Formats: sequence, structure tokens, C-alpha cells
Amino acid sequence: SLGQTRLNVALCDLEAEIIDSAGGGVNLIKESPEEVLGRAVAYARELEERAGLGPQALFGVGIALPSPVDYANGVPVNPPVMPGWDRYPVASYLAQEFTCPVFVDNDVNVMALAERDKGAAAGIADRRGSFILVKAGTGIGAGIVIDGEIYRGAKGAAGDIGHIGIDGDETLCPCGNRGCLEAVSGGRALLARAEAAARDGRSAFLAGELDAGAKLDASLIARGAASGDEECIGLVISSGASIGNILAKLVNFFNPSLIVISGGLTSLGERFIASIREAIYRRSTPLAAADLVVKKSALLERSGMTGAAILVLDEVFSHRNVGRLMSGLR
Amino acid sequence: SLGQTRLNVALCDLEAEIIDSAGGGVNLIKESPEEVLGRAVAYARELEERAGLGPQALFGVGIALPSPVDYANGVPVNPPVMPGWDRYPVASYLAQEFTCPVFVDNDVNVMALAERDKGAAAGIADRRGSFILVKAGTGIGAGIVIDGEIYRGAKGAAGDIGHIGIDGDETLCPCGNRGCLEAVSGGRALLARAEAAARDGRSAFLAGELDAGAKLDASLIARGAASGDEECIGLVISSGASIGNILAKLVNFFNPSLIVISGGLTSLGERFIASIREAIYRRSTPLAAADLVVKKSALLERSGMTGAAILVLDEVFSHRNVGRLMSGLR
Repeated sequence: SLGQTRLNVALCDLEAEIIDSAGGGVNLIKESPEEVLGRAVAYARELEERAGLGPQALFGVGIALPSPVDYANGVPVNPPVMPGWDRYPVASYLAQEFTCPVFVDNDVNVMALAERDKGAAAGIADRRGSFILVKAGTGIGAGIVIDGEIYRGAKGAAGDIGHIGIDGDETLCPCGNRGCLEAVSGGRALLARAEAAARDGRSAFLAGELDAGAKLDASLIARGAASGDEECIGLVISSGASIGNILAKLVNFFNPSLIVISGGLTSLGERFIASIREAIYRRSTPLAAADLVVKKSALLERSGMTGAAILVLDEVFSHRNVGRLMSGLR
Repeated sequence: SLGQTRLNVALCDLEAEIIDSAGGGVNLIKESPEEVLGRAVAYARELEERAGLGPQALFGVGIALPSPVDYANGVPVNPPVMPGWDRYPVASYLAQEFTCPVFVDNDVNVMALAERDKGAAAGIADRRGSFILVKAGTGIGAGIVIDGEIYRGAKGAAGDIGHIGIDGDETLCPCGNRGCLEAVSGGRALLARAEAAARDGRSAFLAGELDAGAKLDASLIARGAASGDEECIGLVISSGASIGNILAKLVNFFNPSLIVISGGLTSLGERFIASIREAIYRRSTPLAAADLVVKKSALLERSGMTGAAILVLDEVFSHRNVGRLMSGLR
């Protein structure tokens, strides 16, 4: 249901490898920030205890939120899926609980860091070059990496591609605008179209599966497409094409060397990735598309935890923070 | 006519101020690269002589071309308005004529450098932050500056916004695609619409002026709009709106702090800039648009020459080139 997601907490080593993890379901709308963050702290304490860590053992805490984040102040800003969190002081709250520095960022940015170091972009030589991590799920967003660093933009809003308008589309988006990519091609729109296709009998596959009690999700639509159900194939292709059509515009502007596709919609299967790729290649300039690679993330669920650990390591061991680090070690 | 443009050559000081300049009309389609570059060298010799400079006096030569450029190799790539220049070795040709280093870039990138140091972006504190220079003329392109440096993208194609597709528009573009921004809203499309409005009598102002021998250009349309001619007002507003509508998408992705509008279409007047601004604010997210400034360039024609000088100064006095510089001074 709305606001329902999973809270994942991991203890990571200095190479951002996950040593141990804990977590469970939370509802970002029904539960207050204090409740959710309190549970995050409790999971962290559990992990510290299991690992036998003392109170000074952590180098830092990294948090990834499904929201635009004012990174310098560690607060979510105008979060569409978690309205009660607007400007809640997440970093300050956690700074009371931990002696180490706390860093708060949005989920797509830390997922992009995970791709940079452990995923599809790890091959970009010497951290030069730029890539885009696209999370396509209920929401659609992007993390932008330039020469190895997250690009955040003037207000930390860079990468908010889910609310780019599709010209001429009048679908109403919860943000108040019409034709937003997320409203047209996000997970919620896809499931609504799939449900309609099951209900009115256009998709025999979906109708049969839902009657038999199957859960309607991206994997089910992928199975339908694999079985040859034309309606499911159409859903997969049109989702990919409309996301790819927006990405083609961004490729002309930004000329990245790599686009990595992640998020729940990747369960739609390879045909979904192929449709994104085709739309990008069809509608971007030959030069911008020349060596562009478009691929599915190999990391998926764990990339949020890994990326949050990389965020901490980047910050704590940055040349910008050498002074603080050295005084902490003395 | 097609390919006709102006060749401008300037002698600049170490602050990129223009000391002296020379130049004249060239045709990038009818004349060969050798002919055009030969004339550029002749203008440069004229300037050196007038200033009494010896053969070793220049620190560097900077060239701005209206084409995508492979910056590392100093060659134009797939130039739509100057097809005979594709992969012509511009930098190597000029390196034979000058003892100093030669740098070749596309015109919008060097115009962005001019804005950074002498124009609308000079106020961005400490060179932090990002801005976009949009050149709206016969072609439409953008220069992207991030933290004070030109962002070129993987293949030097970044900023090629003129060929971003407008969804659902079927206007054929010389590039072979349909609905490209440049084909719909570039100078050529605008003049064609204005001419049609004069011919079929929709615009009494344009019909009268053209009958009286006036030249059809952006300034004439601006005068028509100022005089209250509804067709001219419509042309100005629709041009601005369709450029602004594409920029709104890029604002959501890139979240710049500033967009500077330059190029021949700025002669359409303040209403044109206002239409761009309104379309951007209407269709980008509140956070990305929060402190965004959209303004007209104050530099205009001379920004190419100033920017090319800044390009040279940036490169020659870069920390990356200190070794070469010191050995040259010894």
C-alpha cells in the first residue's frame, strides 16, 4: 500500500562490503520520522551488538531516502512519497545517536555510487567520464555521476526525471502537473493498465493468473510477455519506449558514456531494457549515441546499502576532510 | 544564404579583453576549410602586424566552430551546417602556422566561457555551481559549465539540444529525424512562418514592411510584435515557449542555477526571453526552479572572440599545463 517500503540497515567494512544486515517493513506515510528513524537506530544497535562493536567503532552513518535531499543540511525537501518528512532534520536526529558523522542523500544518488564502485560503471577507467543511474519503479529518478562524483545541481534536485513532462500527454500526476514521466510510465501507472487489461479480458494471461490468486506485479507481466500474451508484451514495450524517449533527450544534452537501469520495473525483463535502449538510439544524435552503453544493473536490492556505505567512505576519507579525520585518529 | 556567416578574428590580452579585431563574411559550404582557415590566418597576421608583435608573442590560438568538436583532437565532427568540414584537422592545420598551442572548440562552449568570466554568470561565487548558455539562432545549441569548467560529455556532443525531439511533432529536420527543436523553433523555421504570415496577409505589419523592401529577420518580427501585430506576437511567444518547454525538461534533470539566452533570436526582444522563462517555470519542479535565473546575454556578438581567448588562457595557464608553460618561458 501507499508509503509501504522496506527499511534496510547494514554494517559495512571499509570496502563497503556488507558484513551483516537487518531490517523490516515500514510505512513512510503512516509512521512518523521519529518512529522510522528510531527503528533504524534499533537495527543499527542490533548489528553493532552482533559484531561486538564498541560505541566509537563506526566511521560514519549513511542514509538513503526516497526523496529529494538538501545534502548540505541532511534534510529531505518536498518528498512526494513521504509528505510528513518535509524538512525533517534527519541528519541532526541521527547525530544525537551516533558519535560519528552522519550523511543523508537520496536513494538514486547512493545507488549510482554503488554502480560506480561495484557495478556497471566500475569499468569506466580512472573514474573519468559520466554516467546516469535510472531507478524505474513506483517513482522514476536518476543519479548523475560526473568524473566519479555525484552531481547534485544547484538545489540538490538534479536527476528528478520522473516529473519531466511528456509533450501532449494529459495524464494527471500527484505533483499537480500533467504528463509527468512517472505518472505515465511509473510502476503505479503500469499496474493500473495491467489490471484494466485483466479486467476487460484483453489479457487472457493476466485475467487467468489474477483469478488464480497471483499477485499483480512487474514479474507477472514479464511472465505474461514471455508466454506470448500480446497485451503483456505491449505493456513492457510501451513502458520501456516512453522512458527511453525521455532518456534520448537527456542523452543529447548530457552525452553520458553509460546509462544503468535499476529499480522494480527491471523485473519486466530484458525486453523492457531493450525497448529503452531502442528508443534512446532511435531518437538521440549519432555522435551522442556513438559509444553509449545502456544496461541493466547487476546490483539491484542491495545497492542502496552498499551505496550509503560508499557515500560515508567518500566523505570521511575525502581530501576535503583530512583535517577532521586526522584529529579524530589522534 | 546557407553556410554564410562571419569570420571574426581578435587579438586579446591576458584578461581576454579584445585589443584589436578583423574579419569578414565567409561561406562555410561554398568555401573549403583551407580557404576559410587561410583567411583566418591572414587576418591574424594583419592583427600581429598592426600591434607590432613578433612571431613568438602569442600564448595560444583559440578557434570556435559552429559544429560539434572532438576537443582532444581539434577536429569538427558531423557538422550539420558545414558538411565539408567533417573531421578536417583544424588544429593541425593551424599548428603549422603558429608556434603557440592551438585549441578548437564549438561556439556555444566558448560563448559559455565568456559568460562565466565576463557575462551573466560572472556573479556565481567562486566558480561553484552550474549554468547553461543557450544559443538560439539558425541553430540551437547549449554550452554547459559545471564548477567553472566546460562539460563536454563522452564524445564532446554534450549540449546538442537543437536535435532534442518534441514529442508528437512531425516537422522534418535536415538531420533526418522529425520534430527536432531546431527544425521547429530555430531561426529558419521562424522566418519561414513569418514569410507565410506576410504572404497570406495574416500579418499586415510584415506584409507592409516586406513590400516596402524591409529585410525579414528577428528584429523585424520584434518590431511587429511591439507595434501590436498579433501574428508577430504569436511568433515571438510560440518560439520562446517551445524552447522553454525543452529547457524545462533539462532543468528537472540538471538543476542549474542559471540559464543565459544568447544568439540571433534574442533580437525577438524581451517578450521572447519572458516566454522561455514562463515555460521553464511552468513545467519544471518547484525545487529545481526555486532559485533559477533565466536571462538574456549581455555580451552577444563579441562573446565568441572573448570566449576563444578565455579558452586559450584556461588551457595555457592551467595547473595541468604548468610544466609546458614553464619550459616555454625558460
